[in-house]
Amino acid sequence: MSAEEQFHVNEVSQSYWQVTFDNGPVNLLDPDTIDQLSVLVERMGNDPNLTVVLFRSEKPGYFMAHWDFLADTARVAGMQPGPTGLHPYVDNLVRLSKLPVATISEIRGRTRGAGSEFVLATDIRFASERAVLGQFEIGVGAVPGGGPMARLGRLVGRGRALEILLGGDDIPASLAAEYGYVNRLIPDAEIEGFADSFARRIATFDKTVVAGIKKLVDIATLPVDDEFARGLQAYFATAGRPDNRPFTQLLFQNGLQQADGIETELGGAIGRLRRNL
Amino acid sequence: MSAEEQFHVNEVSQSYWQVTFDNGPVNLLDPDTIDQLSVLVERMGNDPNLTVVLFRSEKPGYFMAHWDFLADTARVAGMQPGPTGLHPYVDNLVRLSKLPVATISEIRGRTRGAGSEFVLATDIRFASERAVLGQFEIGVGAVPGGGPMARLGRLVGRGRALEILLGGDDIPASLAAEYGYVNRLIPDAEIEGFADSFARRIATFDKTVVAGIKKLVDIATLPVDDEFARGLQAYFATAGRPDNRPFTQLLFQNGLQQADGIETELGGAIGRLRRNL
Amino acid sequence: MSAEEQFHVNEVSQSYWQVTFDNGPVNLLDPDTIDQLSVLVERMGNDPNLTVVLFRSEKPGYFMAHWDFLADTARVAGMQPGPTGLHPYVDNLVRLSKLPVATISEIRGRTRGAGSEFVLATDIRFASERAVLGQFEIGVGAVPGGGPMARLGRLVGRGRALEILLGGDDIPASLAAEYGYVNRLIPDAEIEGFADSFARRIATFDKTVVAGIKKLVDIATLPVDDEFARGLQAYFATAGRPDNRPFTQLLFQNGLQQADGIETELGGAIGRLRRNL
Repeated sequence: MSAEEQFHVNEVSQSYWQVTFDNGPVNLLDPDTIDQLSVLVERMGNDPNLTVVLFRSEKPGYFMAHWDFLADTARVAGMQPGPTGLHPYVDNLVRLSKLPVATISEIRGRTRGAGSEFVLATDIRFASERAVLGQFEIGVGAVPGGGPMARLGRLVGRGRALEILLGGDDIPASLAAEYGYVNRLIPDAEIEGFADSFARRIATFDKTVVAGIKKLVDIATLPVDDEFARGLQAYFATAGRPDNRPFTQLLFQNGLQQADGIETELGGAIGRLRRNL
Repeated sequence: MSAEEQFHVNEVSQSYWQVTFDNGPVNLLDPDTIDQLSVLVERMGNDPNLTVVLFRSEKPGYFMAHWDFLADTARVAGMQPGPTGLHPYVDNLVRLSKLPVATISEIRGRTRGAGSEFVLATDIRFASERAVLGQFEIGVGAVPGGGPMARLGRLVGRGRALEILLGGDDIPASLAAEYGYVNRLIPDAEIEGFADSFARRIATFDKTVVAGIKKLVDIATLPVDDEFARGLQAYFATAGRPDNRPFTQLLFQNGLQQADGIETELGGAIGRLRRNL
Repeated sequence: MSAEEQFHVNEVSQSYWQVTFDNGPVNLLDPDTIDQLSVLVERMGNDPNLTVVLFRSEKPGYFMAHWDFLADTARVAGMQPGPTGLHPYVDNLVRLSKLPVATISEIRGRTRGAGSEFVLATDIRFASERAVLGQFEIGVGAVPGGGPMARLGRLVGRGRALEILLGGDDIPASLAAEYGYVNRLIPDAEIEGFADSFARRIATFDKTVVAGIKKLVDIATLPVDDEFARGLQAYFATAGRPDNRPFTQLLFQNGLQQADGIETELGGAIGRLRRNL
């Protein structure tokens, strides 16, 4: 693969890796992300000693902005199914959740849409006051594709899941913590040390036990794969509609996918721009 | 139907309706409510443009007090099943939840028993500090009939659901928000504007996407219809028992169903009156 | 049975019992606890008038510390299945949850491991600021045996359940309340009166209704028995491994199972001691 490496893996020890995501000024997800995450998840699954992985970002203000609206949709549509039989976009997320490895997201910036779907596929989410989450897809005419209907419904309950998904607005970290969208809020000045200590703690534990606990929590909490298949199908049926294009172009005119444009408050911007259509 | 209209529909736009509930000084639910809600839900389901409905009350202190204890029970018992095959009381609530329309409850007063069951059947619940929720049915000798065992168990978890249902006490808005019984607390001075803005935002979105998201959240979060059938059966088996009557009469002697009687703190009143039996 | 009575039953009234747990300075659970809890659960299930039971501890700082590491494992392994067909350790917990009786834990001290599993099997958990909960089993090389993967996953959601179970750290009462691990926090000076009033309230209600509500909440919230069977199997497969012994011995050298040793902050102590291995 000739694409730039988006997931920088720092093998802190045999049992503990830090993975820093890096793709442009706002950390977009794109077809290369799908290919590279597939490889990373397989590597994580095959390592006999790996017990815990901490996902981070060093982009100021952004964990993972969202899916790249300029991505090659034909390339995505043509991708071969992954090991679960699902399209690799959701296959990655489903496999990530089921790894016999503890996965932690340290969220210090915006993570919306596909970024939110990524953190929801990790086991544990710690967020600082700089984090902003959300599923804004409804605002651009699409059903979210990575299964947040399945995951948020079970994680935060029906009422809050529907508020997040039908409102499509920004969810600041404090509200995300109140709702259980993230585990809890850790002050930004402390979160790096906190998440690292938490990961190092798990790294001292027995991988067999991590795997054994996750297997049973999976039974109690994970959606069946078919829910992800149906979610992605709904995404493909809605996201590419020509009717959506003018509004997406309007978003680009207002700075979409730029670090200091409407990305800073995308939920609010979508509300204003749609009201004035 | 000769009954007074209880659901006042304000078609703010093609895609956004406000519905104000209005039935006596404390907004009781009664057999007419069942008939009229059935018509309203069908109308909401058939409208091709409707995207969001906001439910409100203009009764000071009351959203929907509860089921009318003086209602004609023979009329209720004799009602024909609704489209789901369930008794229309729960049929309405089940169909309301599954509508391809976002539904929001703006709760600024007491909503207990059947009122709580109504708001639990809507998608999103915003509450001001004046809201009081609860399922007091156990205090009058009945298993609640509209499925809160099925809904609260999934929404707030087993422990808190059992506290609400077995304690039968008033749940003030702040505790309801802490428990996830409502989405969140919005100051009373702001909630009208907040809920309206939230609804207007959704009204700018594509109805197809609202429907698509709800369908998948339904899979993740809704009880099967049979749980509602069993709940209503348990209600009919317990609510009408002659043993319950003296206590209900005592409640009426203390101002039940009056705006300034024990309705203001029904949970506490039931506790005191039962202790002194 | 010649063992000391560990569950002191105070029949406050026909419908309301207080049960105080009492086993050594930190309230350990051991094989006698299993035998005696089996008898107690059966007694609770057979009483025609019992409506509510409040579980308490009078040990300063401890509700139920955890399983006794010095217990006779051969005796436990040789125990006959209980009425559910499950090993009596989990059989007790499964039967406790399904009793037609409201059960409340008043938690004013540490309750970890098997103690946490006990309170999770009761219906309602009130905790004072002196409470500390946790599932530290991963820190001693074991998958927890009493089903917290099944219960916490449904009670607090996947993310927080995995934090509790994979982190294995102490969860102070305030965080436990934020996560829904306990219902809510009640100031220590008030919790005794609060829990007693709550129980007395339920004691005035109709046992038939308590049973009817619980039956339907059970459908919505309880794991199937097989999840408990699998959890206990994972415990037996991991807990007794010889590899775990040196670390357990190190814990004993540091005051394990003593009221003022590392039991006071077991989660933190495990972290420190493992880091220095």
